[in-house]
Amino acid sequence: MNEMRAYFAREIPGINAFLAAEADRLDGLVREVARHVLLSGGKRIRPMLTILCARALGHGQGDVLPMACALEMLHTATLLHDDVLDQAQTRRGKTSAHVAFGVTETILAGDVLLALANSLGAGYDIPRLNALLARGIMATAEGEILELAHTARPSVDRQAYLDIIIGKTARLIETACRCGAALASRDRALEDLAGDFGLNLGIAFQLVDDALDYAVSESEMGKPAGGDLREGKMTLPLILYLESLPQAESSALLTALREKRLTVEDAARIVAEVREKGFADETREAARRYVDAALAALGALPETPERAVLAQAAEYVLSRRK
Amino acid sequence: MNEMRAYFAREIPGINAFLAAEADRLDGLVREVARHVLLSGGKRIRPMLTILCARALGHGQGDVLPMACALEMLHTATLLHDDVLDQAQTRRGKTSAHVAFGVTETILAGDVLLALANSLGAGYDIPRLNALLARGIMATAEGEILELAHTARPSVDRQAYLDIIIGKTARLIETACRCGAALASRDRALEDLAGDFGLNLGIAFQLVDDALDYAVSESEMGKPAGGDLREGKMTLPLILYLESLPQAESSALLTALREKRLTVEDAARIVAEVREKGFADETREAARRYVDAALAALGALPETPERAVLAQAAEYVLSRRK
Repeated sequence: MNEMRAYFAREIPGINAFLAAEADRLDGLVREVARHVLLSGGKRIRPMLTILCARALGHGQGDVLPMACALEMLHTATLLHDDVLDQAQTRRGKTSAHVAFGVTETILAGDVLLALANSLGAGYDIPRLNALLARGIMATAEGEILELAHTARPSVDRQAYLDIIIGKTARLIETACRCGAALASRDRALEDLAGDFGLNLGIAFQLVDDALDYAVSESEMGKPAGGDLREGKMTLPLILYLESLPQAESSALLTALREKRLTVEDAARIVAEVREKGFADETREAARRYVDAALAALGALPETPERAVLAQAAEYVLSRRK
Repeated sequence: MNEMRAYFAREIPGINAFLAAEADRLDGLVREVARHVLLSGGKRIRPMLTILCARALGHGQGDVLPMACALEMLHTATLLHDDVLDQAQTRRGKTSAHVAFGVTETILAGDVLLALANSLGAGYDIPRLNALLARGIMATAEGEILELAHTARPSVDRQAYLDIIIGKTARLIETACRCGAALASRDRALEDLAGDFGLNLGIAFQLVDDALDYAVSESEMGKPAGGDLREGKMTLPLILYLESLPQAESSALLTALREKRLTVEDAARIVAEVREKGFADETREAARRYVDAALAALGALPETPERAVLAQAAEYVLSRRK
């Protein structure tokens, strides 16, 4: 994965500088909120995917950074609103924006970043880009909504889980790839291939994230293990665990989740059992299959150095341990 | 104003039907929130301005409704987020969305409507429309932020007040007019005239709103008089009142506003004094000057039936009593 690391190391300073400059141009109250989240060292996966997909399809002239950074801004806007919704106390190991700056400032900063992302997209004079951004924002919000509804009435339902992770995570990653492709080419078939790659990669990314939530300690992840379980989120490791239980036990656990009366001890025991029974690993295996689908889509694109880096990025998603 | 009333009466059912159809296509949880606010009988000023400006500049073929309704959705999205920010209990005489449906659902419904508006704009394949929408959303959020900052540290500052009402109200009305113009013509000079009309009309609209807050009773307005004062909002009637007071009294009131320790009796007395001293009327006179500026911009557009209706709409803004 050396090419990938080198490529990311070369591009990320430019992304960070662009984001910092855009944040500095914002109004006072929102500027600090935006800087807090935008410049707190995310992995920059979405903007990198936009850059890589654009170049993989021959984008040469013109600046790809505004489009790429628009995707990071959309992602950041959803994080800001999510933090308010989840009442999360930390994000990326730092105090959440709404705790540090207030709910009002955080909601408005999210709105400003949504607008800024759309504005950067509109700057290219390619209407397709704004249609893609709008669809990405909508899918992300709808994914959140699905998750909320499902968390309120949890059930063992793999399709519902897949719909949720496609909405809340994979569609925006797909959007990042499609926007890169649309910047380079008006060929919708090429954009669809980039979109297929991104959608499958995004599903794999969230599956690995959900596996990690049962697998690692707080110090590695920046958040405590088992957080999803405590929030009542029905992710694949938990679905596999519930499917493995006798009917009566499974029903009792679902009821406890719905009624939010899982004790800290219950949660710690279930997290350990999920890990010991191999359901976190099984979730990673499911992610492997989506990465394979992503690589198949990628294989239909022309052979370029960027295609090779995208392939390495897909493998990296599987290998990450935090 | 008979032409205006007839024109609105003819167009508003189509706007309402379009909004209802779009709301019905949304996901479950958000659908009810969106319907609650989107279909609660707003005045539809923004979409009407888009339609009128488009036709005033010769837009004949093609459907203007998606663009017009995108403006109403943006407006509704800002109302949804504002209600959460202000913790308002009522809106348009109905229970606020966040009280009826929850903060989470309300924030997400706002995000979905922002995305839907952008998506409708992108459907026209005219990049200028998305640039305008993005700028309108950004200005509105920034206006809110300015107001928050100013409410936290109130001062007698007419320019700050003007910046706030331009941001939070007038820019989106300007955007509605510009989007109509941009739909009809690529001539930027014509769009600028429509924008000038909208900006001045928007300022006048907010001035009248701020005058009404000191002038009318709860039953007429759907909210209690003096609400702005109780929230510590520094609007023109209050600025004029503060300017009329001896220095010591003015400072004491500013301090009471900043420290949020105005009693209900204080507030009622000040509202009555503002009205009796004619500061609500003086605010209406300021609005008159902006309406005149709006009419001057309008006069430079070609003479059409829609131009006449726009002129009547500008006069109507001044005459409204609730």
